[in-house]
Amino acid sequence: MGMVGGGKDAFIGAIHRIAANMDGLIELSCGALSINPEIAKESGKSLFLSEDRIYLTYEEMIQNESVLPADKRMDFLTIVTPNFAHFAPAMAALEAGFHVVIEKPMTFTLDEAKQLKAKLDETGLLLCLTHTYSGYPMVKQAKHMVQNGELGKIRKIIVEYPQGWLSRLSEREGNAGAAWRTDPKKSGKSGSMGDIGTHAAHLAEYISGLKITKLCADLNTMVDGRMLDDDGSVLLRFDNGAVGVLIASQIAAGEENALKIRIYGEKGGIEWAQMEPNTLIVKWLDQATQLLRAGSNYTNTLSSFATHNCRTPGGHPEGYLEAFGNIYRNFALTLSARLENNKPTNEMLDFPTVDEGIRGMAFIDTVVRSNLSNEKWTEFVV
Amino acid sequence: MGMVGGGKDAFIGAIHRIAANMDGLIELSCGALSINPEIAKESGKSLFLSEDRIYLTYEEMIQNESVLPADKRMDFLTIVTPNFAHFAPAMAALEAGFHVVIEKPMTFTLDEAKQLKAKLDETGLLLCLTHTYSGYPMVKQAKHMVQNGELGKIRKIIVEYPQGWLSRLSEREGNAGAAWRTDPKKSGKSGSMGDIGTHAAHLAEYISGLKITKLCADLNTMVDGRMLDDDGSVLLRFDNGAVGVLIASQIAAGEENALKIRIYGEKGGIEWAQMEPNTLIVKWLDQATQLLRAGSNYTNTLSSFATHNCRTPGGHPEGYLEAFGNIYRNFALTLSARLENNKPTNEMLDFPTVDEGIRGMAFIDTVVRSNLSNEKWTEFVV
Amino acid sequence: MGMVGGGKDAFIGAIHRIAANMDGLIELSCGALSINPEIAKESGKSLFLSEDRIYLTYEEMIQNESVLPADKRMDFLTIVTPNFAHFAPAMAALEAGFHVVIEKPMTFTLDEAKQLKAKLDETGLLLCLTHTYSGYPMVKQAKHMVQNGELGKIRKIIVEYPQGWLSRLSEREGNAGAAWRTDPKKSGKSGSMGDIGTHAAHLAEYISGLKITKLCADLNTMVDGRMLDDDGSVLLRFDNGAVGVLIASQIAAGEENALKIRIYGEKGGIEWAQMEPNTLIVKWLDQATQLLRAGSNYTNTLSSFATHNCRTPGGHPEGYLEAFGNIYRNFALTLSARLENNKPTNEMLDFPTVDEGIRGMAFIDTVVRSNLSNEKWTEFVV
Amino acid sequence: MGMVGGGKDAFIGAIHRIAANMDGLIELSCGALSINPEIAKESGKSLFLSEDRIYLTYEEMIQNESVLPADKRMDFLTIVTPNFAHFAPAMAALEAGFHVVIEKPMTFTLDEAKQLKAKLDETGLLLCLTHTYSGYPMVKQAKHMVQNGELGKIRKIIVEYPQGWLSRLSEREGNAGAAWRTDPKKSGKSGSMGDIGTHAAHLAEYISGLKITKLCADLNTMVDGRMLDDDGSVLLRFDNGAVGVLIASQIAAGEENALKIRIYGEKGGIEWAQMEPNTLIVKWLDQATQLLRAGSNYTNTLSSFATHNCRTPGGHPEGYLEAFGNIYRNFALTLSARLENNKPTNEMLDFPTVDEGIRGMAFIDTVVRSNLSNEKWTEFVV
Repeated sequence: MGMVGGGKDAFIGAIHRIAANMDGLIELSCGALSINPEIAKESGKSLFLSEDRIYLTYEEMIQNESVLPADKRMDFLTIVTPNFAHFAPAMAALEAGFHVVIEKPMTFTLDEAKQLKAKLDETGLLLCLTHTYSGYPMVKQAKHMVQNGELGKIRKIIVEYPQGWLSRLSEREGNAGAAWRTDPKKSGKSGSMGDIGTHAAHLAEYISGLKITKLCADLNTMVDGRMLDDDGSVLLRFDNGAVGVLIASQIAAGEENALKIRIYGEKGGIEWAQMEPNTLIVKWLDQATQLLRAGSNYTNTLSSFATHNCRTPGGHPEGYLEAFGNIYRNFALTLSARLENNKPTNEMLDFPTVDEGIRGMAFIDTVVRSNLSNEKWTEFVV
Repeated sequence: MGMVGGGKDAFIGAIHRIAANMDGLIELSCGALSINPEIAKESGKSLFLSEDRIYLTYEEMIQNESVLPADKRMDFLTIVTPNFAHFAPAMAALEAGFHVVIEKPMTFTLDEAKQLKAKLDETGLLLCLTHTYSGYPMVKQAKHMVQNGELGKIRKIIVEYPQGWLSRLSEREGNAGAAWRTDPKKSGKSGSMGDIGTHAAHLAEYISGLKITKLCADLNTMVDGRMLDDDGSVLLRFDNGAVGVLIASQIAAGEENALKIRIYGEKGGIEWAQMEPNTLIVKWLDQATQLLRAGSNYTNTLSSFATHNCRTPGGHPEGYLEAFGNIYRNFALTLSARLENNKPTNEMLDFPTVDEGIRGMAFIDTVVRSNLSNEKWTEFVV
Repeated sequence: MGMVGGGKDAFIGAIHRIAANMDGLIELSCGALSINPEIAKESGKSLFLSEDRIYLTYEEMIQNESVLPADKRMDFLTIVTPNFAHFAPAMAALEAGFHVVIEKPMTFTLDEAKQLKAKLDETGLLLCLTHTYSGYPMVKQAKHMVQNGELGKIRKIIVEYPQGWLSRLSEREGNAGAAWRTDPKKSGKSGSMGDIGTHAAHLAEYISGLKITKLCADLNTMVDGRMLDDDGSVLLRFDNGAVGVLIASQIAAGEENALKIRIYGEKGGIEWAQMEPNTLIVKWLDQATQLLRAGSNYTNTLSSFATHNCRTPGGHPEGYLEAFGNIYRNFALTLSARLENNKPTNEMLDFPTVDEGIRGMAFIDTVVRSNLSNEKWTEFVV
Repeated sequence: MGMVGGGKDAFIGAIHRIAANMDGLIELSCGALSINPEIAKESGKSLFLSEDRIYLTYEEMIQNESVLPADKRMDFLTIVTPNFAHFAPAMAALEAGFHVVIEKPMTFTLDEAKQLKAKLDETGLLLCLTHTYSGYPMVKQAKHMVQNGELGKIRKIIVEYPQGWLSRLSEREGNAGAAWRTDPKKSGKSGSMGDIGTHAAHLAEYISGLKITKLCADLNTMVDGRMLDDDGSVLLRFDNGAVGVLIASQIAAGEENALKIRIYGEKGGIEWAQMEPNTLIVKWLDQATQLLRAGSNYTNTLSSFATHNCRTPGGHPEGYLEAFGNIYRNFALTLSARLENNKPTNEMLDFPTVDEGIRGMAFIDTVVRSNLSNEKWTEFVV
């Protein structure tokens, strides 16, 4: 694995490395870890990279790695730069024949997303999009139960993602992560919806198996001086007739990372909260609520998609890093299977790809259009 | 206390009686408990009413009670009939000089609500509206903290009220409560919003001290064959610039009565859930989350409005009936103070009245108008 | 109902009155509410007692009430004095032909308890002991499930009752409730075990249907200057071979009233916590954990003993006062049935009586003996 | 890192590898992964070990690795065999100059534990004992708060570890982990206390900073046909006068891995539960309960020992593997510091060592002696 971005003190780069390391399947072998050459070098050394594979630009890295023997060069490129700097290294990597892993949102614009799709179709390479939250085993269990019809026809979806970390004008107080995320030149058209709303929308579509068809958005900038929205609420309609609400806020003071989803069907509902991820609450119309637990596979009730993504028995909590690791593990297992001319299992193939990336960019686009419109409903177009 | 409606097997009438009884301040002395004479008589007897005060119509009751000596007649009339039958007995009672207690929503139409207001202004009598949930001590604590500015300026309000009990077409399966609540001739213009949305809207305005100024509603009837909406989601704007979301659903299969509110300000947020009502979760931007507990008044941090409405020390859970009892107790204490020419305290006066009733009816009106409109925003007019 | 003790500012007397009032079945008609004549009079007036039935001593009350016509006199006497003053009024009441309700622990000594039992056997009168916690519907549900064998043979019981309110020497700081409870002349041989340990022991035996046969106790006085133990832990053995632990502490700083019980059998376990009383957690060896909820009787899975003790549908929380009210309601329904020569149902008869009171006193005795012994095990003798 | 034991399908070996891998500081370089040569080979290959470093016995591994150049050989040996097979490879490794990591309990007998201690004193090598639960950041925060006197003098400790996985005679149903853990020849003198009671005792002493001085134990074998105890409850006394209870059960049907500890002092108490490990509940005598959260370092209130052991910001749950990883990370950082002649920080040095291992073996010994005794109290001797 090579990495673009993610120098020391960058939050998400460090997370990607732990997630990739965890299962002993992936090794960081090279990086262009910062646009600041000093930081790039220092970060590379602290990560035990050999000096000749600590690069100063992604172009240099892709070029040099391309000419290494197949068993020496990086297998794929992970891109953890700010949003505006996803597309160029991704396209360059694909053109040089490398698979890519990209942090969400996939690109800066919907058009870029479509270009990546075309290139993938052309090359047959793989793109993995790290929508972390879909890597949790109990999320997969929920998806499985909906798919199996256990809840009946889905009627209502409530997905919320409150955070409080942008309650102050942190971008002016030296918080680098806040600075680029609230800068439309680096982050994109929307702040709250690009950073966390896309996670929420993806989770809703992933578990329910439904597609958003139209929406009504109210985006707001609640902190004076901020350049992008930091809060938004969206009414949703889905392709089976279900309705929904999506809330993404970064000014919900005192909240940490409280992504939560509830999906109700004719027969019952599921509830899953990222901050207590090992429990799936299943509520029924005509029997007692059940708590399904990651790792506790009584009488084989858990889906193979859930158990495949657990490392420990019930009661030994797995968390965010393991969910992130599941995305990497499935991507790596799929790659390995391909290298060995095996067919990857459906469980291995269960990681977000370019299609989810395109829908995420279309979601941002649609929400922003809706916010500017006086019409109640705006069609979701891809 | 006299009672209109609430014969045996009527849910809310029994609740009113327990709530009124609880503190030994109020006694049920007469009733017109059902439009069915047999049920009226039987219900009266089972409640130990003397036979001459078991009435068959509210008109008869008001007339007969009016001519009893002041110390014998009922002090006030409680109306627990279906919504369409609130106004007539209320107006008749007021005209005969009786105070009234009314189950929410206050009337069938906004116009009726305004007529009651005019009559109250004219007579100086009292009207108490049983928005139960504002009777919980931790709700009052939340209101107090917002009012004191402890959260800073309010930015975001999320209030939700999911229930699952109308997930089936229960109105055709012999459920009398479901039958009138889903019948537009008895319930009013909206199902979900009249029955539970008004509670949610009242709670949001009560705690925040803010007023809804405009909204965008999406009401839906998710169960085939139903005559009124059973689900709705509403985007909100408040008079200080805060934004919000209100969700009221009766088809959230598996949910019981999961009213919950979160209010976020610049410095922190509060969270309160009706099903665990003795805890107020207070989240802070820059310190650890606190759990404030009903009855546990460490170093006098709880508001006098909270402690006035507790009967037991911390750890002895009070619930729905006690919250309901608080509405009655405050109403009774206010009445007693007036009878004895004392000034009721602010804590006693803290029960919902006709003004909240009018806003509730205006909320229903506005939500229904918005739902029919293609415009995103509809002004909230009273 | 007449009352001995429970003048204004006495905690438990007020609780008894609310509990008795709640369902409209019982009315406070007379009282000897304090040994202080001023307080007795003032308290009686504030409770709307007629002046001729505000008594200054229980002897006077019993004598005067005895000569009133049957339909005027009190039906039963409730005794809410400190422990040392339970026996005399109880015996006097029984001798005068009145049923009694007594706050736990039933008496000051085991011998007094046995004398009451003999008098009850002789007179056929009823005694109701207010072990409040057994009045909760989900406690009754747990008992029912154990009784039905749903958990298999019971193996392990853990019952704990941590409180923090005696963490300081409150008895010297003007806390009247603390003063008598920590005074061996008023409270009895043990502080923590008499006040709360008896509740825990009763709950364990009530739900499990088992009897403690021997135990090993460690009682301690953790606050300097206190005259009785304020903390204790006890190893238990039951008559079916099950083992257990009972913890009762009043110096668990920061705890409110955190009574909790867990019972494990061969097939699963139940968990119930008084501070979240409407949920019974049922854990299974080979299926997902279930949350049974008071008031939510899906497909009639709840026991009739649970539903008989609910007043509201699921999601409308009932609490401590309702549990207390259930004890009174069942006692009153049993009395009424007897008065009308009906056979009370098993649900009505389900309230604690003199037998539970005797076991409670024997528990205190045995725990104190064990604490003084160097032997590991002490037989539980009644 | 080399590994003894932990072939495929062994639970704890896989956990050790993930924990060691996670932070990119440690690499598995060799192993004697099974006493079955086929499994040893197959396991080594699947873990990408080079063939010449897949050994069939630990003796072979230690001998061969000893003669490799310093920068090639393993840095330390991890021992994840059943308890009876800890001592021999550990002693051999130490004698060959290798540091060791051992799964708890450290040895089969207390005497073996003392021999390891003597050898460590002689050689200056390091031993790390994987008492995983002390690796959680919120456990470290609790320890820090007690140490700082924030709770005042400690009075009561309740530590419990209920599991349900041995509720059936699984050792006869093909469960290999159950088979050796319930076999006194492989597991040691006690089942429940060796496997999980030692974790609980360590946690109590680690957080409180106190030492157990005497105890009273009741061990039981609740499943017919089992050779060792599967349940135990222990009364505790600590060296500052505090009292406590320790419960360890493997027949608590329906429980997963519910280790939980509560420690009460004069001013407040802490509560921590392994299954929701990112929250430390802090209860106060005179203020509201606080929820301290891993990763959320508001105004620097968290101890440096807590923050040093977090990888993610608040709301991104870390779990069991990260806690395990913290033990390895601190051990690796301490080793690195020594190799570079730096002084490791106190945060790095905060991992369990031979002293904790000796106390664990003494705990097992004392508990077993107490269980056989008719005396109430048995001295804890090391």
